[in-house]
Amino acid sequence: MIVLCRPDLTDAQRERILSGVRGLGVTPHVRTEGARTVVEAPASADAACCEIERLAGVDRVFTGDAGAHLATWDGAGGAERTRVRVGTAEFGGRDTVLVAGPCAVEGRDVLLEIAHAVRAAGAHVLRGGAFKPRTSPYSFRGLGPEGLDMLDEARAATGLPFVTEVMDTRDVELVERHADMLQIGSRNMHNFALLSEVGRTRKPVLLKRGMSATIDEWLASAEYVLAGGNTQVVLCERGIRTFEPSSRNTLDLTAVPLVRERTHLPVVVDPSHASGRRSLVAPLARAACAAGADGVMVECHVRPDEARCDAKQAILPEELAEIAGSLRTLDAALRGPARPASAAMNGHAR
Amino acid sequence: MIVLCRPDLTDAQRERILSGVRGLGVTPHVRTEGARTVVEAPASADAACCEIERLAGVDRVFTGDAGAHLATWDGAGGAERTRVRVGTAEFGGRDTVLVAGPCAVEGRDVLLEIAHAVRAAGAHVLRGGAFKPRTSPYSFRGLGPEGLDMLDEARAATGLPFVTEVMDTRDVELVERHADMLQIGSRNMHNFALLSEVGRTRKPVLLKRGMSATIDEWLASAEYVLAGGNTQVVLCERGIRTFEPSSRNTLDLTAVPLVRERTHLPVVVDPSHASGRRSLVAPLARAACAAGADGVMVECHVRPDEARCDAKQAILPEELAEIAGSLRTLDAALRGPARPASAAMNGHAR
Amino acid sequence: MIVLCRPDLTDAQRERILSGVRGLGVTPHVRTEGARTVVEAPASADAACCEIERLAGVDRVFTGDAGAHLATWDGAGGAERTRVRVGTAEFGGRDTVLVAGPCAVEGRDVLLEIAHAVRAAGAHVLRGGAFKPRTSPYSFRGLGPEGLDMLDEARAATGLPFVTEVMDTRDVELVERHADMLQIGSRNMHNFALLSEVGRTRKPVLLKRGMSATIDEWLASAEYVLAGGNTQVVLCERGIRTFEPSSRNTLDLTAVPLVRERTHLPVVVDPSHASGRRSLVAPLARAACAAGADGVMVECHVRPDEARCDAKQAILPEELAEIAGSLRTLDAALRGPARPASAAMNGHAR
Amino acid sequence: MIVLCRPDLTDAQRERILSGVRGLGVTPHVRTEGARTVVEAPASADAACCEIERLAGVDRVFTGDAGAHLATWDGAGGAERTRVRVGTAEFGGRDTVLVAGPCAVEGRDVLLEIAHAVRAAGAHVLRGGAFKPRTSPYSFRGLGPEGLDMLDEARAATGLPFVTEVMDTRDVELVERHADMLQIGSRNMHNFALLSEVGRTRKPVLLKRGMSATIDEWLASAEYVLAGGNTQVVLCERGIRTFEPSSRNTLDLTAVPLVRERTHLPVVVDPSHASGRRSLVAPLARAACAAGADGVMVECHVRPDEARCDAKQAILPEELAEIAGSLRTLDAALRGPARPASAAMNGHAR
Repeated sequence: MIVLCRPDLTDAQRERILSGVRGLGVTPHVRTEGARTVVEAPASADAACCEIERLAGVDRVFTGDAGAHLATWDGAGGAERTRVRVGTAEFGGRDTVLVAGPCAVEGRDVLLEIAHAVRAAGAHVLRGGAFKPRTSPYSFRGLGPEGLDMLDEARAATGLPFVTEVMDTRDVELVERHADMLQIGSRNMHNFALLSEVGRTRKPVLLKRGMSATIDEWLASAEYVLAGGNTQVVLCERGIRTFEPSSRNTLDLTAVPLVRERTHLPVVVDPSHASGRRSLVAPLARAACAAGADGVMVECHVRPDEARCDAKQAILPEELAEIAGSLRTLDAALRGPARPASAAMNGHAR
Repeated sequence: MIVLCRPDLTDAQRERILSGVRGLGVTPHVRTEGARTVVEAPASADAACCEIERLAGVDRVFTGDAGAHLATWDGAGGAERTRVRVGTAEFGGRDTVLVAGPCAVEGRDVLLEIAHAVRAAGAHVLRGGAFKPRTSPYSFRGLGPEGLDMLDEARAATGLPFVTEVMDTRDVELVERHADMLQIGSRNMHNFALLSEVGRTRKPVLLKRGMSATIDEWLASAEYVLAGGNTQVVLCERGIRTFEPSSRNTLDLTAVPLVRERTHLPVVVDPSHASGRRSLVAPLARAACAAGADGVMVECHVRPDEARCDAKQAILPEELAEIAGSLRTLDAALRGPARPASAAMNGHAR
Repeated sequence: MIVLCRPDLTDAQRERILSGVRGLGVTPHVRTEGARTVVEAPASADAACCEIERLAGVDRVFTGDAGAHLATWDGAGGAERTRVRVGTAEFGGRDTVLVAGPCAVEGRDVLLEIAHAVRAAGAHVLRGGAFKPRTSPYSFRGLGPEGLDMLDEARAATGLPFVTEVMDTRDVELVERHADMLQIGSRNMHNFALLSEVGRTRKPVLLKRGMSATIDEWLASAEYVLAGGNTQVVLCERGIRTFEPSSRNTLDLTAVPLVRERTHLPVVVDPSHASGRRSLVAPLARAACAAGADGVMVECHVRPDEARCDAKQAILPEELAEIAGSLRTLDAALRGPARPASAAMNGHAR
Repeated sequence: MIVLCRPDLTDAQRERILSGVRGLGVTPHVRTEGARTVVEAPASADAACCEIERLAGVDRVFTGDAGAHLATWDGAGGAERTRVRVGTAEFGGRDTVLVAGPCAVEGRDVLLEIAHAVRAAGAHVLRGGAFKPRTSPYSFRGLGPEGLDMLDEARAATGLPFVTEVMDTRDVELVERHADMLQIGSRNMHNFALLSEVGRTRKPVLLKRGMSATIDEWLASAEYVLAGGNTQVVLCERGIRTFEPSSRNTLDLTAVPLVRERTHLPVVVDPSHASGRRSLVAPLARAACAAGADGVMVECHVRPDEARCDAKQAILPEELAEIAGSLRTLDAALRGPARPASAAMNGHAR
């Protein structure tokens, strides 16, 4: 049992809580997390938790591992869904945001070429990895800081904000200086040191679901970022690992309406990594939008066969344009007329 | 290696094939399957298979278990997708077919009430189980033959054709006499005796994917039905088993475009069994349609809380009407204008 | 909620139970299962179930699908583990039973050759399929009734009892006449019609776990057999389906101690189907025994490369002899000295 | 395709390799990794890779992501399995090494108490977390540097070397100064920055398998450490994530013989995290040993109910003593007589 106390806890309340825990026959451990007192005690029954939760000065009592009160609805302090702005795009608004670009930044010229192409095709945000997580130490792991400079240049040239992955706590400051949005990749969803570090920044965060993470664990990882004071978190479903070999991963679109029920955070879908196959990207992008996703992120390359990673899943700019068109059609068909920019800020959940 | 010979195999060709297999250093076993000769030999290399496939009289050579030449495209003898008619509904045409009804047939009056309600809401086919597979022997397992009579009466009253599950080879003849479409449930996807028996009927078959079946295995099960001479098979994705506990199963919508690429058979999606939660049915039905599904099958009940099974996932008729509306909107937005009935029969794949 | 009433239920008790259920605000459905009355009512809370369970005439109340009171300990009516005799072998006694033989019965001579070899190597029971479940309709599906005659002959020649699979309700009577033990394969663990039919026989049953069945579901399937009055059920763990491609399935040895905690039924392990690779069979057979399995079932062939199915996992008789030796060594090291036959019948759980 | 060149690559060889790659119709990218040249080119066929592999100056050609030539047998340059010494314990020798201790270091006194108890029970290495990965940011995350000091003290008092987890690249130097063995936890198996950093140290590394990592990916992660020059890697199987809810994870013991076939690295098993239940730890520890594991790691606490994490799976010292006894019995029964220390160093694979 974890008892998260209110920031304004009084000494008397604290004593009452501790004696309450002792009354359950277990020994409380007390520590502080920022401004809050946290009381922990060994495993205990739900009924006991309810009892403690009723005491004055208690904010929340968690059993088990998964406390995510900032990420979930009833901690949101209102009925509004969070909206996250990246450049002129807004995740969580009426329109489906389209993020596109190469898997990795491979060179200046090809990046600029792709950036212009995805913008022309209708993308709102550019994606591209300067630091790449690769299963093998012998694979291309990205251009690093040089890649960040190229992304800056692509933004200057096209006006597109960019999202890029950060993989090491030591790189957070550097990436934060360049990027418009920081990506936490699937393989680092459980890298709690990195999540905490990113929670200290004030840049929007795109948090990919771990390849075998439950939705509860995913929200608990979002909580690490939120607990650091960074409220700009966008969740990204990118497929989970299952027994089925025909696609790279199994896209879990059920997660989209589930996450929208349980949290106030926007959620986007990455059909490229989920499927691993070019021909599946467009139908899954449409399905994501119809399921209620706030955005779609796809890999796009001007010459996919030359891509240094994930060549089989990158689509061409003309396919991207088609997807962009489908998303606009679906937004219009399912979400009603576009609201003018000012009205869009009223924040009614769709 | 399995060598499927052509129906018109000559004795000379047969001898040539057998000596070819012996030339690989293995002993061939010969048997006949209907009109065809089948030659089997212990595991062998792909290269060897190619060699045998070139011999006269050979139709196809399979390695491993998964030969599904009737179900997959290149065995289809043409570029047309199969269309399966059930009453006035057509799976594989332009419009998304909506199948709805109770999990189980629970009684005459409530079934009629539901049948009228789903018809009014826009469903094209009624679903309802007279024989129910239940994990526990102590759960309600359906009304059996009596349930089939009630379904007949519901069809007479509403004009809706119905699909119902058959679970035992001994019941196939009975269910065939009543139903417009025979359902093979998830738990019986690997019940090869049942698949063969259903392949001998001439009623359309709705083949649900096994809860941990790969797409290859699913198509191989369809092949059992097709190999019996029954060409009217509709596949149904209903969620696969994964580690995620928030939904009953994980709906694999990637299977929809994949199956459409690899086979000529229509594919429908069952978001009710996949999610197990009422609130998720509508967004997943929309997503299925946007992914290209030929139909959607949902559980609907006039008083879900009274349903004798799967109460948590049954939706109300008014929710069904909303889904029916969404599907029409999506068909119009993504699939172009509806074709007149005659044109629809021309059979162009969408 | 499912209320299983006692066989000696009185009318007054029945009325009291029904009014108790109605008092929860739901409508009870009443039916009979054999000699017992079963009352069902729509989903309800655990607290409510407890209340009903206290009423006179109630045997057990189940929530959800998984009632397995005959299979699990507290329904066993005593602290004894069930022992199942097949010929002179006893599943559930001190010694690990070794079951071995070919995947499929392929012919008279080779079967006799294998039967003599596995007997010499130390096996206690012969296995071999006359009816084979195969993913593809074009694969060899066994010799059928002729295969059963060959198994009879092998028993006559070697004295080994045999276990063989039954796949169709229509074949149960035939297979029962021949076999010493009936196998329900993985793919039929959810074939409830078949389970019920086998429950009507009085031959021991080897019930394989479904490839994605939870332990609860596996026990519920055992319950189908037990509920039919057949108490001689042996469970068989044979690997579950996961994301790992290096082995055919993932052997879940945790299931062995878990099943021993929760049920009184013996449990055996099949490392051949689990791993799909010859070299892994011996270490996993040893591990199974060390985990507490009551038996080990392996595929063995005199010329594995000629086997018509599963050639890659069949071991040679000399490897089988080594496994038999390891099992005896482990039984002696971990389970104490062998008891004389008479003492062994006292039935103390080890 | 990734072409790993030999360290002594000449310019002429390099040019020949590049022109060979260009001859395949693709553009090579060249970079250096330490002393080696690495040539990368977009996806290409196996046949082409073979061709390039034959060229002078080429060490190895990888397709796909998974190159692990240092970890796997044929890169080992000999038939010897690697042995890793930690204190007087040796992973990869004849005897099963027993690692035991609390999940987390919770305080000085309780740690000393546990350390003395596990030593008395027969453990060879102490485990205990100073930095703990926790799903929720509100859970106890370890005592940090202070915990490391306590572990030092426990070693001084008992003579037991210790293994402890490192989770952040910034902590590697600190943990390296204290620990006898560095643990990379499941959640960080894909944290490539951390793996590289640990590869730069010269302390033995215990690399846990990711909860949904394939064996190939696990070996590729080991390769990150080996490629940094740290050859002292011990693999640890700790259960994978599956659909089965009865145990915390599904222990994959098939991985033990598989890893022993494919690599020269020792492999240990953690039945505590795998099962999550006290009663399952002993049978699974025995099974691990019988399957060929080089060691077993278990959680042990003097008062499990007071443990601040994973209380349900910690065993008591007396249970640990029983396990230690079983392991000695099994080593003697299955692995022959213990060799004297000097002979043990001859390094014959068992």
